[in-house]
Amino acid sequence: MAQELFNIDKEKDFSEWYTEILKRADIADVRYPVKGFIAYHPYGNSAMKKIMRYLEDGLERTGHLEGRFPIFIPKSVFGKEAKHLAGFEEEVYWVNKAGLNNLEEPLVVRPTSETAMYPMFSLWIRSYSDLPMRIFQTLPVYRYETRATRPLIRSREIAWFNEAHTAHATAEDASKQMDVGRELYNELHHFLGVPYIEVKSPKWELFPGAAEAYEYFVRFPDGRFLESGSVNNLAQSFSKVYDVGFEGEDGERHYAYQTCYGVSERLLACTMSYHGDNKGLIFLPEIATIQVIIVPILFEGAKDDITKAANKIQKELWDNGIRAQVDNSDKRPGEKFYYWEMKGVPVRIELGPKDLEKKSVMTVRRDTGEKKSVKISGIKKELPKIFEKMSKDMRVGANDFMKKHITYARTMHEIEQGIKDKNAVYFGWCGLEKCAEDIEKGFAVTIIGEPQFPKPEKKLDSCASCGNKAKVVGVAVKDY
Amino acid sequence: MAQELFNIDKEKDFSEWYTEILKRADIADVRYPVKGFIAYHPYGNSAMKKIMRYLEDGLERTGHLEGRFPIFIPKSVFGKEAKHLAGFEEEVYWVNKAGLNNLEEPLVVRPTSETAMYPMFSLWIRSYSDLPMRIFQTLPVYRYETRATRPLIRSREIAWFNEAHTAHATAEDASKQMDVGRELYNELHHFLGVPYIEVKSPKWELFPGAAEAYEYFVRFPDGRFLESGSVNNLAQSFSKVYDVGFEGEDGERHYAYQTCYGVSERLLACTMSYHGDNKGLIFLPEIATIQVIIVPILFEGAKDDITKAANKIQKELWDNGIRAQVDNSDKRPGEKFYYWEMKGVPVRIELGPKDLEKKSVMTVRRDTGEKKSVKISGIKKELPKIFEKMSKDMRVGANDFMKKHITYARTMHEIEQGIKDKNAVYFGWCGLEKCAEDIEKGFAVTIIGEPQFPKPEKKLDSCASCGNKAKVVGVAVKDY
Repeated sequence: MAQELFNIDKEKDFSEWYTEILKRADIADVRYPVKGFIAYHPYGNSAMKKIMRYLEDGLERTGHLEGRFPIFIPKSVFGKEAKHLAGFEEEVYWVNKAGLNNLEEPLVVRPTSETAMYPMFSLWIRSYSDLPMRIFQTLPVYRYETRATRPLIRSREIAWFNEAHTAHATAEDASKQMDVGRELYNELHHFLGVPYIEVKSPKWELFPGAAEAYEYFVRFPDGRFLESGSVNNLAQSFSKVYDVGFEGEDGERHYAYQTCYGVSERLLACTMSYHGDNKGLIFLPEIATIQVIIVPILFEGAKDDITKAANKIQKELWDNGIRAQVDNSDKRPGEKFYYWEMKGVPVRIELGPKDLEKKSVMTVRRDTGEKKSVKISGIKKELPKIFEKMSKDMRVGANDFMKKHITYARTMHEIEQGIKDKNAVYFGWCGLEKCAEDIEKGFAVTIIGEPQFPKPEKKLDSCASCGNKAKVVGVAVKDY
Repeated sequence: MAQELFNIDKEKDFSEWYTEILKRADIADVRYPVKGFIAYHPYGNSAMKKIMRYLEDGLERTGHLEGRFPIFIPKSVFGKEAKHLAGFEEEVYWVNKAGLNNLEEPLVVRPTSETAMYPMFSLWIRSYSDLPMRIFQTLPVYRYETRATRPLIRSREIAWFNEAHTAHATAEDASKQMDVGRELYNELHHFLGVPYIEVKSPKWELFPGAAEAYEYFVRFPDGRFLESGSVNNLAQSFSKVYDVGFEGEDGERHYAYQTCYGVSERLLACTMSYHGDNKGLIFLPEIATIQVIIVPILFEGAKDDITKAANKIQKELWDNGIRAQVDNSDKRPGEKFYYWEMKGVPVRIELGPKDLEKKSVMTVRRDTGEKKSVKISGIKKELPKIFEKMSKDMRVGANDFMKKHITYARTMHEIEQGIKDKNAVYFGWCGLEKCAEDIEKGFAVTIIGEPQFPKPEKKLDSCASCGNKAKVVGVAVKDY
């Protein structure tokens, strides 16, 4: 049967586009028989894994080591940090039974790993010479979301989650580590080439137990923003509770200063949504599960030669680290083009009798449709160049796009208008929660914090709400 | 404080050696506050990850794709295959509560993923052209062990678990896939360089729901064997229950034939235990977290030059893909030598004033102690050669060692003696469970199956128990 053409207006019907593309492009399947849980198809899983691999490389380069900590946390251990417990107890899964036995103490299924890791940090850190300690892990976490779930965006199983946790001798060292975490996350968002805003979080939005935080919000095609990561300064709130201490150079015992930062599979949702178009996905070459799809154009008489040549090119590319596949199915070439465009494969190679005669192939970029004839002998050197150019082109627009979709507001009226026009508003803010509340309630928006990136480009002297002197700039957005 | 020297007789006091080395070498920490759960130190975790990466590469090379499936399975879905449920229900964790709500239907925390994956296979496979389907994942599984737990060997959280699941159009295709799985697992055991026996499992030992299985048993220094993996032919037992079907070329609907195979963190326990010695661990260079430790030998007057040279060598090696570190701590060189020997780092580089004068370093192999002076300019080319030689030497002995530790028995008495002498006995066997039981009860051993590797080298015509004609060769071992 011929596959139905994918053609959904991404800007106009983004919600439908998103739901359909996850299904049609074999990213994730929502039909798993537990509500809010999805199964990753290999095609989607592999792209997600490559995003995490990029981050893990960055973490290792900056001195983080990968550990592995248990999924279950005894209720009493989980509850030691009171705010943390209060923040999470309504959204954790509980294990009460094992085999045929009821457990004496219920176990929490980790919603995040502070309370699993820090009792071990307490044992592993003895003296200042053990510091800094920087550990990460990439393992699923679980949150019993009561809001509507949405694959990759709000799942009850966050199947891909990377969390880094650090401990330091001084508040200054922890503060410097915050800069490292922020740089990694800014890099990561640039790598994905998505429009985003980095904010310093309002105090009332802090992660349970945190003293300071920076958050990342990615703009989706419907204009709404999704939190894609956070970098938290925990100060000593956990170290005092979990006894993460050390003997200092002064011979005295001190509590460590800690930071933690995490991102999830939302990153995949972000990059797919921004880069896709009405025909489907467009993957960055670096994260594409299949980077090159070779489509043989078969004519009677030349079938065998072309198939053989296609397979040979595939093998040569694969052996040179390029993830190439041949579509040898029975479909017509046109159908294959549409199918692999929908799946977002960065480069298509067409190989017909005329190409073969000229010992060349036609390469077609998914993002621009740009065609280029390339000699078969030079293909393995040419493709990385095409990838590089394509990646650069796909990334370069994101920051400008973001800047163009921010309005600057001096008054409540300008906030209202800005939200209507562009969904994101920078405004002068006295910093009081009361004024933030007025704005949030007045226009059904969220004040996500003080923008760090992109930096405000206009001066905003007075609070848009109360008119008093502005202490900072705030950002109001429509969020998910 | 000076570190206490590690010196435990591995052959004589293996149990103590194992417990102590996990702790001292920073592999895993048993002090996690849930019984049977451990926290991996980064040093141990990284080695385990490299073992899995080796296997994953093999799986991908042979056409397996990596997916990701949820951890929770509704009780009703888990229980569809009756034998599977009966086999696992006493050893699974149950989630009964989420947030503040009691769940209508309890969720099983996966002990393995057949019942999570196959409902999706049922949806993903439509026609014969979708077959074969070969999917794997590397994610933890959970089993509420009632036996004594032991880190990496019998944990309630199997933190590293790789399971592959395949579906085929015919029994023949599934049978061929069994060969692929077995080859991958034999390769894996050779890669780890450990003495092991591959057996065809007795019918009564089959994985719940399996029709045929091959299992891998690694010999530990105390002579006992540990199951390290299994390859299972599921025939249609699951496909009929989970409706994993397809439209055949004949236009009719058929059930798929399935296989599955899995290995776990036990592989790390196996390779550490076999290759270690009384001074500690000896990692194969391929899986070593740190492959080279550079120890500067500092003398007054040359301190700065040596430290600078050591750091420069480290950077050069790291940039060339060699995992090298410098020990710049305050310890004396001798202390550093012992410490890194205990941690199993394959190669030590010593760099003192005389070495520096000669523009060379001294390399020392952890397994043999062999020393070799190498010019600094040639170090990045020389080290891979040392690694290769060392890996080969470490691996070559394992098969011979295994063969030497098998005895051949024709009678019950010879079985008894063989077990006493070498813990593993090949014997003639009529194939009846009754005879196996007599042997198992008589000598407190386990009949693990019919040996596939190493192949029996002697003829065994009659059953050691009943004296009737032997149909097969059996293996009796002391196991964990």
